[in-house]
Amino acid sequence: MKFTTFLKDGQPRLGLVDGNAVIDLNQTQPQVPASLREALAQGVDLATAGKAALDSDAPRLEMASLALAPLVPEPGKIICLGLNYFDHAKEGGREKPEYPWFFFRGATSLIAHGQPGILPKVSVKFDYEAELALVIGRRVPRHVRQEDAPSHVFGYTCFNDMSVRDYQKRTPQWTIGKNFDGTGGFGPVLVTADELPPAATGLKIEGRLNGQVMQSANTTDMIWGVAETIALLSDVLTLEPGDVIVMGTPAGVGQARTPPVWMQAGDRFEVEIEGIGTLTNPIRAED
Amino acid sequence: MKFTTFLKDGQPRLGLVDGNAVIDLNQTQPQVPASLREALAQGVDLATAGKAALDSDAPRLEMASLALAPLVPEPGKIICLGLNYFDHAKEGGREKPEYPWFFFRGATSLIAHGQPGILPKVSVKFDYEAELALVIGRRVPRHVRQEDAPSHVFGYTCFNDMSVRDYQKRTPQWTIGKNFDGTGGFGPVLVTADELPPAATGLKIEGRLNGQVMQSANTTDMIWGVAETIALLSDVLTLEPGDVIVMGTPAGVGQARTPPVWMQAGDRFEVEIEGIGTLTNPIRAED
Repeated sequence: MKFTTFLKDGQPRLGLVDGNAVIDLNQTQPQVPASLREALAQGVDLATAGKAALDSDAPRLEMASLALAPLVPEPGKIICLGLNYFDHAKEGGREKPEYPWFFFRGATSLIAHGQPGILPKVSVKFDYEAELALVIGRRVPRHVRQEDAPSHVFGYTCFNDMSVRDYQKRTPQWTIGKNFDGTGGFGPVLVTADELPPAATGLKIEGRLNGQVMQSANTTDMIWGVAETIALLSDVLTLEPGDVIVMGTPAGVGQARTPPVWMQAGDRFEVEIEGIGTLTNPIRAED
Repeated sequence: MKFTTFLKDGQPRLGLVDGNAVIDLNQTQPQVPASLREALAQGVDLATAGKAALDSDAPRLEMASLALAPLVPEPGKIICLGLNYFDHAKEGGREKPEYPWFFFRGATSLIAHGQPGILPKVSVKFDYEAELALVIGRRVPRHVRQEDAPSHVFGYTCFNDMSVRDYQKRTPQWTIGKNFDGTGGFGPVLVTADELPPAATGLKIEGRLNGQVMQSANTTDMIWGVAETIALLSDVLTLEPGDVIVMGTPAGVGQARTPPVWMQAGDRFEVEIEGIGTLTNPIRAED
């Protein structure tokens, strides 16, 4: 099953994807909150609600005609992994890390599929990072066992972890370079975990700049898989419904190229993941 | 004016502080949302609502008898500064930084005044950090001028940025060591900006472990003051009502002592800031 979040009268609504169309889930199933985070937090049975919507003759809205919102517009936490593909660590001149380089994003950095990534006024070093992301469905018990971890994932999607490299490297803390407004592409659809291989392994992931393949890898190449990442995080904190984990990027980023490749206004970056779909964001200069 | 957030039937409620008592603002002024973040986001005139409550004969609840919640239970962002006092940078063997070392906390790390800081199972290097924190009242325009920045602050409070040092230093990214559940002491009261010196400068700040002074400084010693910090952040992102900025800690932390001092179950740490109050958290071992 595939979910999306779209804008209706400027407000985010939860939608169920039916082919190239979207069913307004809040209209057909009024017990389902408009917010995916809220629906998950309330433990709403989205599989049943989704099936009922699919079986109904509810209006189908053409997906291409809709303005989307970030899949979870206001996650409680957005936890990102740095250096989670060895070839990407290597291209940055680093050893294979012994623990994930976690950092957080804030919701103000998120944009939807189709919305522009914003090249900041204060930087020209604007880079792309194609990544797998997941949304937590049920609260994860602290110190969860690895084998139990993936069952807490509601679904998977694409993420473009756009990075303002000079700010990222202004100090050893990457956080600020990962939190510019309009730099976290997130979508277009959330594919429920049951429709993908366990822990979303074995999926081809590709990043394309203006149609040219810049990153090409497989989610199996991740150093820390989904299960291990969730288990490690559960030693530290409580993962709640709607929390997002962004799983890191493979080799091929712009900064590691000779000469470096920086995204420019007018560019277009796509993140495609097998079995999920393609996240597209045009690049626009900050006003 | 002083606000606090307390628990009533397990739910956070916004309270107005009147001496040693609290008025349930949601009861006397039903137009005021129970969440401070929501009240600020809606632009509710809290000064007028607070004054009406103070002038009323609404019941006064003894503050010491209340269970408090974190002042803003679910901020959109919690942005922390590392190394913002030169003497603290020095005690860690570092130069004076040229840009703040920003990192984020998630709301799951927050605890209220009186709630226990949780010594994690997976670490024994549990440290304290006395800090000034602020809550944004009005959305900050991008690229705000320094002189206009402080007017966007609703109020100030105390924060104990408890740090799990081995996790903090497991990789160069500090985030994970700053995000254990039950490690962000936040409160007890939010003092509105008009009751403090401009940008909360000139306030004595002290951190005490079991009554012994471990940190003693003045907010004037901060490398980046409140105005400059907000202006720098506004080059990057949108600060929204209810967002929290945690301003960094002065010298005297446990890890910099010989021998190091780590907090133990049964300890008590207090953060006192002149004109604001005292945040107290007992330390308890994780279950």
